[in-house]
Amino acid sequence: MADMADITADALDDHFLAELGQQFRVDAVRATSHAGSGHATSSMSAADLMAVLLARYLRYDFDWPGHPGNDHLILSKGHASPLLYAAYKAAGAVTDEELLSFRELGSRLEGHPTPRLPWVDVATGSLGQGLPVGVGVALSGRRLDPMPYRVWVISGDSEMAEGSVWEAMEHAGYEGLANLTLIVDVNRLGQRGPTRHEWDLDAYARRIRAFGWHTVECDGHDPASIDAAYSEALSVSDRPTAVLARTMKGRGVAAVQDREGMHGKPVPDAEEAVGELGGVRDLRVEVRRPGAATAPRVPHGVEADLPRYEAGEQVATRNAYGQALAAVGRDRRDIVALDGEVSDSTRSEYFAKEHPDRFFECYIAEQELVATAVGMQVRGWTPFVSTFAAFLTRAHDFLRMAAVSRAGLSVAGSHAGVSIGEDGPSQMGLEDLAMFRAIHGSTVLYPCDGNATARLVAEMADGEGLRYLRTSRGKSPVIYDPAERFPVGGSKLLRSSEEDRLTVVAAGVTVHEALAAADRLAGEGIPVRVIDLYSVKPVDAAALREAAERTGCLLTVEDHHPEGGLGDAVLDAFTDGRPAPRLIRLAVENMPGSATPEEQLREAGIDAEAIAAAVRRHVAASGAAAA
Amino acid sequence: MADMADITADALDDHFLAELGQQFRVDAVRATSHAGSGHATSSMSAADLMAVLLARYLRYDFDWPGHPGNDHLILSKGHASPLLYAAYKAAGAVTDEELLSFRELGSRLEGHPTPRLPWVDVATGSLGQGLPVGVGVALSGRRLDPMPYRVWVISGDSEMAEGSVWEAMEHAGYEGLANLTLIVDVNRLGQRGPTRHEWDLDAYARRIRAFGWHTVECDGHDPASIDAAYSEALSVSDRPTAVLARTMKGRGVAAVQDREGMHGKPVPDAEEAVGELGGVRDLRVEVRRPGAATAPRVPHGVEADLPRYEAGEQVATRNAYGQALAAVGRDRRDIVALDGEVSDSTRSEYFAKEHPDRFFECYIAEQELVATAVGMQVRGWTPFVSTFAAFLTRAHDFLRMAAVSRAGLSVAGSHAGVSIGEDGPSQMGLEDLAMFRAIHGSTVLYPCDGNATARLVAEMADGEGLRYLRTSRGKSPVIYDPAERFPVGGSKLLRSSEEDRLTVVAAGVTVHEALAAADRLAGEGIPVRVIDLYSVKPVDAAALREAAERTGCLLTVEDHHPEGGLGDAVLDAFTDGRPAPRLIRLAVENMPGSATPEEQLREAGIDAEAIAAAVRRHVAASGAAAA
Repeated sequence: MADMADITADALDDHFLAELGQQFRVDAVRATSHAGSGHATSSMSAADLMAVLLARYLRYDFDWPGHPGNDHLILSKGHASPLLYAAYKAAGAVTDEELLSFRELGSRLEGHPTPRLPWVDVATGSLGQGLPVGVGVALSGRRLDPMPYRVWVISGDSEMAEGSVWEAMEHAGYEGLANLTLIVDVNRLGQRGPTRHEWDLDAYARRIRAFGWHTVECDGHDPASIDAAYSEALSVSDRPTAVLARTMKGRGVAAVQDREGMHGKPVPDAEEAVGELGGVRDLRVEVRRPGAATAPRVPHGVEADLPRYEAGEQVATRNAYGQALAAVGRDRRDIVALDGEVSDSTRSEYFAKEHPDRFFECYIAEQELVATAVGMQVRGWTPFVSTFAAFLTRAHDFLRMAAVSRAGLSVAGSHAGVSIGEDGPSQMGLEDLAMFRAIHGSTVLYPCDGNATARLVAEMADGEGLRYLRTSRGKSPVIYDPAERFPVGGSKLLRSSEEDRLTVVAAGVTVHEALAAADRLAGEGIPVRVIDLYSVKPVDAAALREAAERTGCLLTVEDHHPEGGLGDAVLDAFTDGRPAPRLIRLAVENMPGSATPEEQLREAGIDAEAIAAAVRRHVAASGAAAA
Repeated sequence: MADMADITADALDDHFLAELGQQFRVDAVRATSHAGSGHATSSMSAADLMAVLLARYLRYDFDWPGHPGNDHLILSKGHASPLLYAAYKAAGAVTDEELLSFRELGSRLEGHPTPRLPWVDVATGSLGQGLPVGVGVALSGRRLDPMPYRVWVISGDSEMAEGSVWEAMEHAGYEGLANLTLIVDVNRLGQRGPTRHEWDLDAYARRIRAFGWHTVECDGHDPASIDAAYSEALSVSDRPTAVLARTMKGRGVAAVQDREGMHGKPVPDAEEAVGELGGVRDLRVEVRRPGAATAPRVPHGVEADLPRYEAGEQVATRNAYGQALAAVGRDRRDIVALDGEVSDSTRSEYFAKEHPDRFFECYIAEQELVATAVGMQVRGWTPFVSTFAAFLTRAHDFLRMAAVSRAGLSVAGSHAGVSIGEDGPSQMGLEDLAMFRAIHGSTVLYPCDGNATARLVAEMADGEGLRYLRTSRGKSPVIYDPAERFPVGGSKLLRSSEEDRLTVVAAGVTVHEALAAADRLAGEGIPVRVIDLYSVKPVDAAALREAAERTGCLLTVEDHHPEGGLGDAVLDAFTDGRPAPRLIRLAVENMPGSATPEEQLREAGIDAEAIAAAVRRHVAASGAAAA
């Protein structure tokens, strides 16, 4: 079979390739016109680039998408999905009937590619993400599972303006990723008009070469020129190559070719266009298959020998994160860690020291940090990403898209909240819970002590989707036994009695403030219940409902802005029409400055005294109402 | 006065500059040691760069920070704040006593600079933001208020890895901003170790030159070499200049100089260090003042002749945004608009066509898009930024920092929610309400028709802080009179009776679904109240409380993920311990694919039928409970 494929591919002459490119154009015109929307012209510019790639260079077994030797093709300009689907059709992977289901409800052929299609590694459509993720895939093939697969990224020219592309350029150039080829479809026109550099290929080449890449320019509508460029890319052994292809948007159809105002829509007259392109074809390509390859073994579910902290010991949860990750990494050889040049702060340095071969320094480039991890999980690795919680906002769009990609990814954000102290608001994660909660399918965890943190790190290693762990800078006393379990979706009841007047719901640093407040209030004859809601998403609905029923009022206290955090999260247990409890919310409503951690908690009104005062007010008001 | 300043500055010899640099080091050591935290070594590497700048190049009136002719100095490496404060002291702007209040509660001298200090334009501390914002300030001086001020940005070498820096490089190079100088303090060491390029200045120079800049390298500890570099920067008239300075972290104190592990902390022995640096000095610099200059006139509060839409007319709120912005821009010459290469989609193209001199195409680089706007508001302009709501996540960190900068900024996110239809999840803003609500001091608006949109655009032009407007792709019927007012913090009661069984709280597209559901339910004998909660932050607490009291249950329905959006926002009215109503939340819980807008609303369970069904269930359950 492999032999035949080789013969077939070798026999494909330039005329066949030109015809194949026309077929892709025709199919893009047909799919978009049938759908009544979609990006015909952006597909047409890159059709010849795709034809040469599919027929002569890509090594891929469409019958076995999980083949560890498969090349990776990432269409960064995801809006050109009709081109990708046309290529799948030529490869025999989708039928013409499915092609024409493009953009219909239930179809796998979405407006922008997603991994609902087994041959799509990651969702694209937010521009400037394909190359960053491709770097992670290519890096895996160099430093984790050395294999001869190649990574091909097809990007548009407009998206070269995204900073994330240059983070990726730097990363790939620095790592010398010769197994990575970027193909830039320079069709001159963005969505609303010409790009900055239009057809000045050298403007792109200068920039890319400066970042340590090889570049080659070609005529993106001449199969021989494209072939020569791809061949040159294969011949470069010490660095990645960018193929800069001069193309025309809407190539081949006079009504739209190289014309403004034709972005993101079907051609005006599909029948005429198909005729102009030489009619419907049904060419097939026998895509070359990769050689035999073995997937790296990934031992999941191993019981790690986690660090254990003694009750009363002062431990920063960021420390516990680093120590637990290093421990989990001992048995789980699939775990990799990536950090944004702050591993001494996030404590991923513990992992780095123990497992240097599986630690990746991504420097201060948070988009590329997350993208590299997404690329690695494409290859079956289990990545843990860490940086300051505040700086994860830099990667928000990549995190959002990771969810669309159905990626499995663990993220740890350190230095959460005002409790970091003197550094001030630029370094404080005060929006991270809101950001991560709103991402589809996410899990959000916020432990308050070392043992809880260690257990949750182990949980994350076996989890699905996006898992976020929020850690704190300062030390706090260990309150849990090392043997205690912390299931996702659980909580801990730390204080309770039959006479509780209210329930304080806390997480992370505020758990300790809540306990102090409860002890103080108990001394005043005001018993209160305290819940450690370490699982912020999903929340422990049963525990919250029971607390609401028993005490009538939930007081939430969090080191986060009032919106989208813990205070909003508890409501997840009460949005089905059942009676809701009274609610009191303590959160960071001020704009912090510099101050000690203790002063910060006091200024924000989330320390033990603020909690106690709010409880006293509530009790007084209830008493007054009762009287 | 200006003359004397000139004489003084000219008379400063290199020995004085070297002494001034030492003074800055001493003061950085003293401030950090007194505080017990802070970045001494990062201040020391850039001390000579700051000394030459302050004494010979900067033109700034410290007595009049608002002087329109003032230069702008942005310390992008904000962690080196002790250096900045030491410079302010030498300029006579802060006392030695205030210097030693560094990082104390209440002090203006925060861990990272913020505009609590009148000479600080924008907060820094999240790396890679100073240059992007500086581009906006410099661009204003070229294209909006042509003036001879210069923009000086001092950055670290680590932060050159941030993609946002390269977005800014491209923008500044393309615009030929000769009034912008970037000074890179190449001290070789990042937080946890060496940078990628260490002291390879040419690695930086090659990259920066490729983006159309002039570069000059210098010895960052030799005043003469620094002076020559700055002088060369001034002599370049057609492009921005980057000064690449080779420096040593912790320069001048053997215990820390060029050593790893010395980032972000005081020197081990302050007294010894001060001795090694030659002791405490009290040198003063008479900073040159700018020439006479007039600030551009900014006519606020003008009553714009807004577009008016007739009842029943089908209008997309994104269209109304563009038309209203163009209208407001007619009288308000301070309004500028910026877009991320999608002005034909966001409809900021209406403004661009009518006011091309005040429209800025920022291409697909959302961080630079927001940063340019932040830079323009520094100069007194009133910016409106637009792109797809989904892609604003790309600029989350810049939006967060804009709040710390106390920046005044309006942002419009189009294509919100699943209702965009076929394009699929990558293009859908489903996290934007959560993101903007959680930003300190923000205003979040989500209108449902053209007239409401137009009025809210006018409100935004007069607002403070960060104002977000969420717009929709599809058309919807006009339901409000053009004369209707839409104050921030308000809402509209669209259906009500004495017998309402429940209140549907909707915004944007779901208002129309809610009205359809209400009409259907009314026909079934189930009257429901409908509130258009167009102001998502702040919410109309009075209206929500009244609705809760009268109907007992709030059903929220939103085209957004369930977390952090409208459903959470209504709770803002019930977090003071008062009885909360029953809550039912309809939101986008599925991962959408492609489908028509109508199908998307149905699949997500947020259309009229889903609302009606939820109401019927509630009524049935209430009836059962009553029986």
